[in-house]
Amino acid sequence: MSDHPAHEETIRSERGFFGKLVHVRVDHVRMPSGKESVREVVEHPGAVSILALTENDEVILIRQWRHVPGAVMLEMPAGTREPGEDEDATARRELREETGYEAGETRQVTRFYSSSGFCDEQITLFHVTGCTPVDRDDDPDERTEVVLVPRAEIPRLVEEANREPRDAKFLIGMLWLSQQSS
Amino acid sequence: MSDHPAHEETIRSERGFFGKLVHVRVDHVRMPSGKESVREVVEHPGAVSILALTENDEVILIRQWRHVPGAVMLEMPAGTREPGEDEDATARRELREETGYEAGETRQVTRFYSSSGFCDEQITLFHVTGCTPVDRDDDPDERTEVVLVPRAEIPRLVEEANREPRDAKFLIGMLWLSQQSS
Repeated sequence: MSDHPAHEETIRSERGFFGKLVHVRVDHVRMPSGKESVREVVEHPGAVSILALTENDEVILIRQWRHVPGAVMLEMPAGTREPGEDEDATARRELREETGYEAGETRQVTRFYSSSGFCDEQITLFHVTGCTPVDRDDDPDERTEVVLVPRAEIPRLVEEANREPRDAKFLIGMLWLSQQSS
Repeated sequence: MSDHPAHEETIRSERGFFGKLVHVRVDHVRMPSGKESVREVVEHPGAVSILALTENDEVILIRQWRHVPGAVMLEMPAGTREPGEDEDATARRELREETGYEAGETRQVTRFYSSSGFCDEQITLFHVTGCTPVDRDDDPDERTEVVLVPRAEIPRLVEEANREPRDAKFLIGMLWLSQQSS
């Protein structure tokens, strides 16, 4: 795509922030007109989002405290990839850690940027079926409450999301599931 | 929600990065167990995403260069709020600037965090109908190519998004539209 007329050439990069989870890179670019500009890029390792269903066709959701909105949010299980970890393994691990359910069959549905204008985080959505409850270690600092929602109630959940702020990956999972024939 | 058992108390905050578009705040928190931890918060002014249809029921999309993926992406028109600007005004202004279409009727559909785990960006999705072409200023550095897609082809576009990376707000708009009766 580098010959596209809108292509921007990166002249140099600086490190803006180096954190535990996210980093910021500041790229100086030359735009098609020849003018220079700055692009701030938030670097993130990427994540998986897990649309998991039990053998009774219930969607396995969690409620957990989110520091950014300062509130408890209803979400799908999700997690950040560990270095070298295969995404399917991340999905199985996070589902078990966050909900106490063992994944049955896993299938990659789609992959998307959470906010491609300034952040390189890509999220892979997995559809996981035939999940069964197993034992769960109880971490006092990861107090996720598991919520089982019958699949037929998903359209109502999407409606509720119109009144209460939710996360993009939650909406994508719920909207995608609503379109599938059960 | 501050009495929720998973509530984290912020002890102090530091500025990690102060950029042109994004900032990073580093919050030191006390978790429910009493242990301390760090939460990195990417601060963003928020944006609108515009699901615009012409009077002929075509969806108005754009292709534009995105620095982060280093590629041209198919997207809905979108834009960042200017200080003090009303979101409806942002949607009308950005639609005109990016596509050369004048908004007809605007309606707020939903609002979501792009990635609530580490970023406070909230996106408001507008459904805009009855859009009509007007004149457009040509900015050489904002080379957006306008693409009109008949509404009936939207399910195909969502399928394509399974193979090529796209943006969360694009997927949410397309999936939402696919569910509406025309």
